[in-house]
Amino acid sequence: MLQVITPEEVLRLIRESFTPLSGLEETVGLDRALGRVLARDICAGEYVPGFDRSTVDGYAVRAADTFGCGEAVPAVLALAGQVAMGRGGGDALAPGSCRGIPTGGALPPGADCAVMAEYTEDYGDGTVGVLRPGAPGQNVIFRGDDVYPGKRVFRRGRRLAPQDIGALAAMGVVRVPVARRLRIGVLSTGDELVPPEAAPGPGQVRDVNRPMLCALLEGEGIQAVDWGIAADDETMLLQTVERALRDCDGLWISGGSSVGQKDALCRVLETVGEVLFHGVAMKPGKPALLARAGDKPLAGLPGHPAAAYFVARLFLLPLLDRLQGRERAGWTVTARLRENVGANHGRAQYTCVRLEREGGTVWARPLRSKSGLITTLAEADGYFCIDRDCEGMSRGTAVEVTVWTGERCHGL
Amino acid sequence: MLQVITPEEVLRLIRESFTPLSGLEETVGLDRALGRVLARDICAGEYVPGFDRSTVDGYAVRAADTFGCGEAVPAVLALAGQVAMGRGGGDALAPGSCRGIPTGGALPPGADCAVMAEYTEDYGDGTVGVLRPGAPGQNVIFRGDDVYPGKRVFRRGRRLAPQDIGALAAMGVVRVPVARRLRIGVLSTGDELVPPEAAPGPGQVRDVNRPMLCALLEGEGIQAVDWGIAADDETMLLQTVERALRDCDGLWISGGSSVGQKDALCRVLETVGEVLFHGVAMKPGKPALLARAGDKPLAGLPGHPAAAYFVARLFLLPLLDRLQGRERAGWTVTARLRENVGANHGRAQYTCVRLEREGGTVWARPLRSKSGLITTLAEADGYFCIDRDCEGMSRGTAVEVTVWTGERCHGL
Repeated sequence: MLQVITPEEVLRLIRESFTPLSGLEETVGLDRALGRVLARDICAGEYVPGFDRSTVDGYAVRAADTFGCGEAVPAVLALAGQVAMGRGGGDALAPGSCRGIPTGGALPPGADCAVMAEYTEDYGDGTVGVLRPGAPGQNVIFRGDDVYPGKRVFRRGRRLAPQDIGALAAMGVVRVPVARRLRIGVLSTGDELVPPEAAPGPGQVRDVNRPMLCALLEGEGIQAVDWGIAADDETMLLQTVERALRDCDGLWISGGSSVGQKDALCRVLETVGEVLFHGVAMKPGKPALLARAGDKPLAGLPGHPAAAYFVARLFLLPLLDRLQGRERAGWTVTARLRENVGANHGRAQYTCVRLEREGGTVWARPLRSKSGLITTLAEADGYFCIDRDCEGMSRGTAVEVTVWTGERCHGL
Repeated sequence: MLQVITPEEVLRLIRESFTPLSGLEETVGLDRALGRVLARDICAGEYVPGFDRSTVDGYAVRAADTFGCGEAVPAVLALAGQVAMGRGGGDALAPGSCRGIPTGGALPPGADCAVMAEYTEDYGDGTVGVLRPGAPGQNVIFRGDDVYPGKRVFRRGRRLAPQDIGALAAMGVVRVPVARRLRIGVLSTGDELVPPEAAPGPGQVRDVNRPMLCALLEGEGIQAVDWGIAADDETMLLQTVERALRDCDGLWISGGSSVGQKDALCRVLETVGEVLFHGVAMKPGKPALLARAGDKPLAGLPGHPAAAYFVARLFLLPLLDRLQGRERAGWTVTARLRENVGANHGRAQYTCVRLEREGGTVWARPLRSKSGLITTLAEADGYFCIDRDCEGMSRGTAVEVTVWTGERCHGL
């Protein structure tokens, strides 16, 4: 029997046993930075925008010159030229005058406000009537409103999204310090496995975990190194593990689900490193195993694809986040259970669900499946967890559903 | 003034004006299929698993042979060998006998149940005692439980996630029919723009939209083709647009936010195609423009980065989904407003928020910002919408927050 620990203890053990890798930084161009993890805080070195800008098409004015005006008594201002896009605001604006300005144009010195063209009238004689009073700062973005020197715009550990690429462009950060992409070896074990392209013979099944886990890693921006299928031979497994460990930052080994195979993998991992735990009080996923060789993690995942998937998502991705110093935000969708769900006492149970919107309510329909079915994962929108000390949940209960995010990933 | 339409009308117009592109299919290997969009339904051609499998380590039995047994009166069965992993189940199991079986092993013909080793005793004399009765089907995954010939496992239009890669591997689908990656040209206009790597002079700003929109496309698995910055010259703009249109499946043109520039872009798009709408009753994002040249979309986006981002997310990504036949699932996080939020009557208002978890409640803190600030997007976790006929929402109101998904993407 396994000496099992809880999912919370697994995460605590990971935090305590692994630290962000040093020497992991590299610099990439802005056009290669999407999805990469910032290796340093990004502080602005300049003002964005670098000058006061109008947000409307109209006239730059001194607001005080327009106080008290109206449709009946326009403020009549001397027209002092036109601001061109991409040029400065020109000479200082004298009191009692205005200057034409396009959206995004630079405010002239002395001006503190832009009035919309709709609320003005060009008399054609070198004067413009302003029909509504302006206020200082109105329709203006001031220099540094977005960013100023020294402002910390991003913290290290952030995975860069498209809008972040925009913010870096605005600051002129075109060489981006990011964590090197981790290399994780993926290996399957089991005499019953054949590669997905092969036709299984009697008693054989295709290797599902290796392509699935490689895809999961790639979707996270991590390089998966495919080490193939290892036969159930302890000596050969040890050799493969040692070789993979020299090449990679860590290793995910799935399969070996029978007792003898599990013991063999455990012995191999004890040979090359220190076993941190073996067995988690969860369903699916009980026979998970984690070891450490120096600062490299070696994980043993269950052979059942659904169990392997949950172990990878719940523990191994957070572990890789830890190595990269990555901060991950996760939000859940609140949904109401369509059906009663029972649970095994003593184990955290992760139940796959389909989400169904009906009017204003989101319903979670539990997908019942035998252990090991892979299509259940593919049919689901996500999962929720029933705590180990809960005996089940009744229809209508609100649950917090973690939605798969894999759909959002892409492999080039 | 623009003839504006509502966001709902925009989406309806897109559905009516564009259809999935034909001739878009290609075949990729399973290891390149993550994040790609299925071009066809995937139906299984065989059974998964291909044989009845045990889910436990123990003995394959005929359940009827164990009925009525218990700790005190074990069912004593003749041990008829051992099933090896990756082999068939062997000869038919005679009544009154059992065969050792590992997790994942093939059930012998005649057996209908597997009993766990924990509930048995090997007497060492060629017999095994079963201490708990089994039931037909217990601890067994039957042939075809996961997939059977003809079962439609995936619909066309699905973007493939890691667990989908696993399901395809299980079925032996290693050549995957997917929609060709779209090529979308991205172009910025505006005399005030300089590339992100340049130092802006007086009245100049760095081009934020082009790198941001390219990253948004890449994160969606779409190839962004960078057409640079076009000067505000109508003839040259027309030439660039015509050239880009020959090369790409569509074009995103941002900037040109002043009235004269907007008019110039509109005339160019009228020259090469048919303008579908100009102006949306939304904030930010009002000056959006969509045209069609044959089956290729030509979009004019606002110059302000935040406005360009919302227009792209809300309308242009769904438009590209439509061209690819992609089905997109979107779920929201229910959160309570931290503060009152006012709204402009008559325009749908998209407000960026930070999410903050406090006990069991998720709070949405609105980020107030002037139009055009790019860091507001980067600071936010997502956004919610205030309908056009709503004057504002008060603190504590539950809102549905769409969380950015870009964080989940990655560019290799």
